[in-house]
Amino acid sequence: MDGIASSTVLASRWLADFGAALEARDLRQAGSMLAADCCWRDLLSFTWNIVTVEGPEAIERMLGATLAEARPSRWSLLGEASAADGIVEAWFEFETAAARGLGHLRLKDGRCRTLLTTAKELKGFEERRGAARERGVEHGVVRDRRSWLERKTEEEARLGHDTQPYCVIVGGGQGGIALAARLKQLAVPTIVLERNARAGDSWRNRYKSLCLHDPVWYDHMPYLPFPDHWPVFTPKDQLGDWLEMYVKVMGLNYWSGSHCRSARFDAARGEWEVAVERAGQRILLRPRHLVLATGMSGVPKLPEIPGAAGFRGEQHHSSRFESGERHAGKTCVVVGSNNSAHDIAADLWEHGADVTMIQRSSTMVAKSETLMEFSSGRLYSEAALQRGIGTEKADLMVASIPYRLLPEVQRPIVAALKARDAALYDRLAKAGFMLDFGEDDTGLFLKYLRRGSGYYIDVGASELVARGDIKLKSGVTVARIGERSVICSDGTELPAELIVYATGYGSMNGWAAELISQEVADKVGKCWGIGSGTAYDPGPWEGELRNMWKPTRQEALWFHGGNLAQSRFYSQFLAMQLKARMEGLPTPVYGLPEVHHRE
Amino acid sequence: MDGIASSTVLASRWLADFGAALEARDLRQAGSMLAADCCWRDLLSFTWNIVTVEGPEAIERMLGATLAEARPSRWSLLGEASAADGIVEAWFEFETAAARGLGHLRLKDGRCRTLLTTAKELKGFEERRGAARERGVEHGVVRDRRSWLERKTEEEARLGHDTQPYCVIVGGGQGGIALAARLKQLAVPTIVLERNARAGDSWRNRYKSLCLHDPVWYDHMPYLPFPDHWPVFTPKDQLGDWLEMYVKVMGLNYWSGSHCRSARFDAARGEWEVAVERAGQRILLRPRHLVLATGMSGVPKLPEIPGAAGFRGEQHHSSRFESGERHAGKTCVVVGSNNSAHDIAADLWEHGADVTMIQRSSTMVAKSETLMEFSSGRLYSEAALQRGIGTEKADLMVASIPYRLLPEVQRPIVAALKARDAALYDRLAKAGFMLDFGEDDTGLFLKYLRRGSGYYIDVGASELVARGDIKLKSGVTVARIGERSVICSDGTELPAELIVYATGYGSMNGWAAELISQEVADKVGKCWGIGSGTAYDPGPWEGELRNMWKPTRQEALWFHGGNLAQSRFYSQFLAMQLKARMEGLPTPVYGLPEVHHRE
Repeated sequence: MDGIASSTVLASRWLADFGAALEARDLRQAGSMLAADCCWRDLLSFTWNIVTVEGPEAIERMLGATLAEARPSRWSLLGEASAADGIVEAWFEFETAAARGLGHLRLKDGRCRTLLTTAKELKGFEERRGAARERGVEHGVVRDRRSWLERKTEEEARLGHDTQPYCVIVGGGQGGIALAARLKQLAVPTIVLERNARAGDSWRNRYKSLCLHDPVWYDHMPYLPFPDHWPVFTPKDQLGDWLEMYVKVMGLNYWSGSHCRSARFDAARGEWEVAVERAGQRILLRPRHLVLATGMSGVPKLPEIPGAAGFRGEQHHSSRFESGERHAGKTCVVVGSNNSAHDIAADLWEHGADVTMIQRSSTMVAKSETLMEFSSGRLYSEAALQRGIGTEKADLMVASIPYRLLPEVQRPIVAALKARDAALYDRLAKAGFMLDFGEDDTGLFLKYLRRGSGYYIDVGASELVARGDIKLKSGVTVARIGERSVICSDGTELPAELIVYATGYGSMNGWAAELISQEVADKVGKCWGIGSGTAYDPGPWEGELRNMWKPTRQEALWFHGGNLAQSRFYSQFLAMQLKARMEGLPTPVYGLPEVHHRE
Repeated sequence: MDGIASSTVLASRWLADFGAALEARDLRQAGSMLAADCCWRDLLSFTWNIVTVEGPEAIERMLGATLAEARPSRWSLLGEASAADGIVEAWFEFETAAARGLGHLRLKDGRCRTLLTTAKELKGFEERRGAARERGVEHGVVRDRRSWLERKTEEEARLGHDTQPYCVIVGGGQGGIALAARLKQLAVPTIVLERNARAGDSWRNRYKSLCLHDPVWYDHMPYLPFPDHWPVFTPKDQLGDWLEMYVKVMGLNYWSGSHCRSARFDAARGEWEVAVERAGQRILLRPRHLVLATGMSGVPKLPEIPGAAGFRGEQHHSSRFESGERHAGKTCVVVGSNNSAHDIAADLWEHGADVTMIQRSSTMVAKSETLMEFSSGRLYSEAALQRGIGTEKADLMVASIPYRLLPEVQRPIVAALKARDAALYDRLAKAGFMLDFGEDDTGLFLKYLRRGSGYYIDVGASELVARGDIKLKSGVTVARIGERSVICSDGTELPAELIVYATGYGSMNGWAAELISQEVADKVGKCWGIGSGTAYDPGPWEGELRNMWKPTRQEALWFHGGNLAQSRFYSQFLAMQLKARMEGLPTPVYGLPEVHHRE
């Protein structure tokens, strides 16, 4: 028997035995099939939650609590298993009482090291696509037939006025749009509230030189992938146009130019009161569920610096920077050293400004090219496509690695980056730039998950920093602002006509504080981060991103967001959770975490 | 050796020998490898034309004229051959001096029965997609960098004013749009002129109940297929929205609200003068090529009927019918019995009008469901997708059948339709409806190709006709129009408050007469039709659709159109012909036909 065949037999047998143990509700038997450090990541199928359960004991507890409702069955391997470095990997299908599921397992020495179980679709509430798509025309003849346009126009006119949406999504960027598209396919009546005039404006309104930092293969929206000629790094206005088109052809109820003023949960009625201002009109929406999709970055953080009020030049947060065009010849200070700081500093330099970057703490720099080669490119690239790994499969492969194991996966990648771009890192260090690669050398992706900051994906600005074209003042903080200068903590005074504060964003629950109440924001607690105990991501260990795409401590309040890939992938699970609730399916949530941090 | 293996060896050997004969320019040897009734269909690769050459002698002549320039080589089978009913089929690749090609062959008794050769892409002028796509961002730092939006805005502002497009397409329906998208990918500067206010309006402005009569799998646009949930039969407004979005995200230079007033070819300068009125402004465009994509249907045919001027009710051509809504309770006469006539009669009936259809000659009726099952569904359906036949492959499979052989392919399909829907046909006949299935029982698709008319794809109206809900007056013509009635050739007087003339369209060269001159229209001659010698398609035999997507007798004038599938498929060949000319490649045209009919 060759390696693939014997791995397949092994995986198949393990799966059958494990399935049998679960069907017999024999927790000890199931537990005995797991490695001592087993991580089981479940996306809805057992827990109606997004949760990673670690170790056989905790897993047995989880099974004890969920098996009676989940009633898993029909475990069956998908395709062949594979083996490398003593690990056997395989994909499988299964069912629960409510859903059809897709899973992935890794076995080591015959026991399970990692298990992923995901709900793929709710039985009886499948999306209508492929052979099950709608007809579009009612064949036959029908008196007073109403056309697609008439039905659509009427539905749009009624929704939010005569009829209430089941769900309101605040924020119509890629996150809100992806989720609304999923909900539309599941026939969950939804309104997206977007304060900008047009879908896509959240991208159009950003600084002129912005392009996506991730490549196209990583950035597809659900259902309607970018065409094959789409550029590798989408310029922001082109992405804006794409999103605007997407909203239209996906038939979303997208209220642009609509401000969500406040929201209040009426526990007695089990519904929200969402106050909206739309085209000068005040509308009170009463959805059953409220999703905040206002950007995983949360509210812009503008540091309070003595003297700032007296500054005679122009100053604003990076989120409001548009273009270096107006600043040719001016003296500019960019506070911060992450992605936006670099992009903005480069944009200013390209337009002929005199730019100084203030680096307050060390930064991870990774060249975009190198990242594509060593990191995203393995799963999201033309080469991956050639190997049969499309976006959906790649997403599941990423999901199959528990957060607990990410550091060991990422460290060799970081080592490879360091070696490949040693010359650049050397020159940056010589220019005084404070580099890091994560506290534990786990690199950019973990920084993103832990704190959502602390890195620059280099698309050119590092060269300017290394050359000294972008001047650098590092290892200081801003002590105060003069009338025409920035005074650093070491006493250095930097003349300034423009100050850009690329000082990041707060946690997403800041939006809950703004829109709902501080009380609800505190009840829900910090969003994002996994409890790694590293900077800006305090413990205890959570095992999953806090509050994202899953039930929170506030009934009927949800947070959705992340980059395009996360918005694409997790929107399907958030949509399924909402659909299940709308249809009245039992959705007992297992493992709702304690709230340890309020901000 | 099993059947597939031996077929593959056979096909492989034939291809190698044939390739060797062509490389040696041994026409007799090549000719001896062809069946006496061999049809060779070439799309550009040998002939820079769309042409079917029939019989070994004619093929030898074609080879004698084209081999020196084409220099074909590298013939190689793609995948396995297949065999059924004594015919071995296989796909293959090859190259010419200018292009990479894709082909298909059918062998019978070791000789070639049909051969398809198509140019897939021009060497050195490949579309930039997949791994070769553009970067989108210029990594590195560049003083005075211009953003995607700035470059796009400037290009749009200049094109047609400071710079001239290489190509102007008159008509921005699916045909013009598909072609413009292809040209964009080949970097051929193009302007599409569309008189309506928005892309998609040519669909939106049609009658309210209209949906596509062909199913979604047949109707994809190039590059950006409909998503998987798209309805089977797209409602016209939804298609309008899709086209509008498509124009936007494909980045086309689409001048909506722009009337093409006239066009004149300046032979001395080798360019057209195209007079355009756009937003009240007169603009003279000077492209090198002019494409008429104003609808394969040509100019609406409004019969001149005595008394029509004195009619006191409302009367118009079917192309101007919007909805039955306004006509509830009115007495309406629809002249004609093809697709539009049926759709409009049903729409009127659904809105409570009293409708009579005047059937002047017999009509082929085929139920949409049955057509999907027996005809398009074999190649364009979920089932076909499951068998690995995507749209591109299906298009090539259709293209691989020479027009000469279509009758024998279609007859069994027609027989199957007749059997399946015998009950309906029976009831229609009893209601007095004059049925046919094509003069030679070859059905709907051949009627479409020969005359573009003469059929109804039944989505429900036939039931109304059978029941008598749509009243029928058949076997008569309209003798004259009274003040409030239609008087038939048999003397019957039908009261009428509304008359809709669903009387069809002229040939596309009618557009050339309108826009350019009668002289040019006559020089070019009739468009569409294959010279079958059946009604409305006089001989002699042409072997291909007249003047479509290929060089015409008027230098630099082209006709583009057809249904969504033809627009998708043939746009690639028309785009390549234009690209080759723009790049100055030699494009000697073989087999430009004589003009036998002016209208």
